Amino acid sequence: MSENKEKLTELQDIGEFGLIHRLTNKVELVNSSSVRGIGDDAAVIKYADNISTLVSKDMLIEGVHFDLIYTPLKHLGYKAAISNFSDIAAMNGKPKQMLIGLAVSNRFSVEAIEEFYSGISLACEKYKVDLVGGDTTSSKSGMIISITVIGEAENKEITYRNTTNEYDLLCVSGDLGGAYMGLLLLEREKAVFNVNPNMQPDLSGNDYILQRQLKPEARTDVVDILKAIKVKPTSMIDISDGLASEIFHICTASKKGCSLYEEKIPMDPSTILMAQEFQIDPTVCALSGGEDYELLFTIKQEDFEKVKNNPDISVIGHITDEKEGINLITRSGTSVPLTAQGWDAFNKRKMEK
Amino acid sequence: MSENKEKLTELQDIGEFGLIHRLTNKVELVNSSSVRGIGDDAAVIKYADNISTLVSKDMLIEGVHFDLIYTPLKHLGYKAAISNFSDIAAMNGKPKQMLIGLAVSNRFSVEAIEEFYSGISLACEKYKVDLVGGDTTSSKSGMIISITVIGEAENKEITYRNTTNEYDLLCVSGDLGGAYMGLLLLEREKAVFNVNPNMQPDLSGNDYILQRQLKPEARTDVVDILKAIKVKPTSMIDISDGLASEIFHICTASKKGCSLYEEKIPMDPSTILMAQEFQIDPTVCALSGGEDYELLFTIKQEDFEKVKNNPDISVIGHITDEKEGINLITRSGTSVPLTAQGWDAFNKRKMEK
Repeated sequence: MSENKEKLTELQDIGEFGLIHRLTNKVELVNSSSVRGIGDDAAVIKYADNISTLVSKDMLIEGVHFDLIYTPLKHLGYKAAISNFSDIAAMNGKPKQMLIGLAVSNRFSVEAIEEFYSGISLACEKYKVDLVGGDTTSSKSGMIISITVIGEAENKEITYRNTTNEYDLLCVSGDLGGAYMGLLLLEREKAVFNVNPNMQPDLSGNDYILQRQLKPEARTDVVDILKAIKVKPTSMIDISDGLASEIFHICTASKKGCSLYEEKIPMDPSTILMAQEFQIDPTVCALSGGEDYELLFTIKQEDFEKVKNNPDISVIGHITDEKEGINLITRSGTSVPLTAQGWDAFNKRKMEK
Repeated sequence: MSENKEKLTELQDIGEFGLIHRLTNKVELVNSSSVRGIGDDAAVIKYADNISTLVSKDMLIEGVHFDLIYTPLKHLGYKAAISNFSDIAAMNGKPKQMLIGLAVSNRFSVEAIEEFYSGISLACEKYKVDLVGGDTTSSKSGMIISITVIGEAENKEITYRNTTNEYDLLCVSGDLGGAYMGLLLLEREKAVFNVNPNMQPDLSGNDYILQRQLKPEARTDVVDILKAIKVKPTSMIDISDGLASEIFHICTASKKGCSLYEEKIPMDPSTILMAQEFQIDPTVCALSGGEDYELLFTIKQEDFEKVKNNPDISVIGHITDEKEGINLITRSGTSVPLTAQGWDAFNKRKMEK
């Protein structure tokens, strides 16, 4: 079968993005309703003149994407839903329907699965999303979650990754790095617990970063804000893998470069404090941490006045010609080439292991 | 966590359908575009006046739903796609887009995954479906496939499970039981191989049942046939779990009974021969075997003339009042209550283990 590894390519040699490219670069769309396929936060399907359906899909595997030792099942359900709502928001749309597939081994009781579903339901209720389908099956080991979210957007409002232009301003919602610091804190307390199970976890005073990790929100409110202030982003993506990785996605897809200003990256004081406690550069947390589910987008220069005083939006850089590359302008004013250190599912988080 | 089994309900106590009911019976739809949610072959989402989007989702787990010992990866990809296309056909619609999620452990090479994708592509090409999204990630053990298929249908053409009426005729496309006999044959040769790895599998002369198991087709052609002969089914479902289970789904959802005539159940001669070789009643294969991906539907009596000479359609019974129950009229003319012995993911196939 697949046991013969001679001459065959190992998955870790090409990475997740390399594999997806290799598998899908020959795909051609034949149906007129297929507006946009692989390569953005969601697929775009158009059945009506003015409105499109957005579809996003995600698979989460126990031991790879989540650890049930410190993730309550209800929170897991909530976060699984949120991360898909976030993909729809990243297309400048609103999530409307969800289908959920769940595979569990028999170590899970019915009550445990209900607990997971209660998190899903809470997210659906808060974001006004209908659960319209689901299948539950058995797995050989652990829990596997598969979610499909369907959203809608007016055709003229949809934002893609590959449409930014030189001189556009790079913006981000909320603040960054918190989810990653929450993860590091939970991992530290898990390690302490493994050494001494009588030790109680010390999580006090870290509500914000724990919430960012365990109960994040999707920024559908930013979609509303942008509409209200009459700004249509020229490109948009959500931050699931870390700021650096997402900037690379937008710039590569749009064939552009970028200057990112370190001092402009928004971070919560509690994120910075915890980074210092872990002796990590806070900027690295924002660039590489991931799971913040904030929106990264570009706007035309002429829209600057509309966003400059908005507390939910920070301008963190600008788009340049492709030849100039993707650069971080440090606090000292030095320009250094940025590297994409995002999540790679086959190599796990670089900073984690 | 979920280790404390005291007072908790074990999954196998309530089964797959019981669990789904328990998890979803409180779900209420809030969005006007959510026409139909959980409880049919696909969800129905309406964004335009005349046309709706159909969404179906499925998860397949190695060791639970497929065995890579005798399933070539290309065939697996093809079948995974087909089983979802079949769900869209069961709503009287056509599949148009697909999203695929794949999780694999590092025992799979890139080439193995490409082989799987080539089966997906072949199915997409044959059924004119666009692959519009996909994510690939790592798993702790084995292969997990998650597929979402999006289809479309005119609003007035969509068929549900819960809309059949007394005196309607029960019809089925193609023939039944073949996929299950193909599975038994493969299982037998696997057992022989496990005892003596030098023994070559004896699969000769069984092309039809092997194809039914390894390379089934979705009956989107029957959707076209019904349209051409101007028959709109009063209810429809696809046969993934076995004829008996699907009849129960239609009758329970529609609050009706049914008389099914054993002698009318269409079966291929090679299926009957193999059943005899295994000393299994061929009718049991058709009733409980599953994975035939034929369409089971009901039509009005007045449409009988339109279907009676169609080689792809067999009339196998009729719908009765709910009080009369769901009965099999045997070859000898005896009426016996039918039991639903379909696939139950938590108990595996009853006849298999």
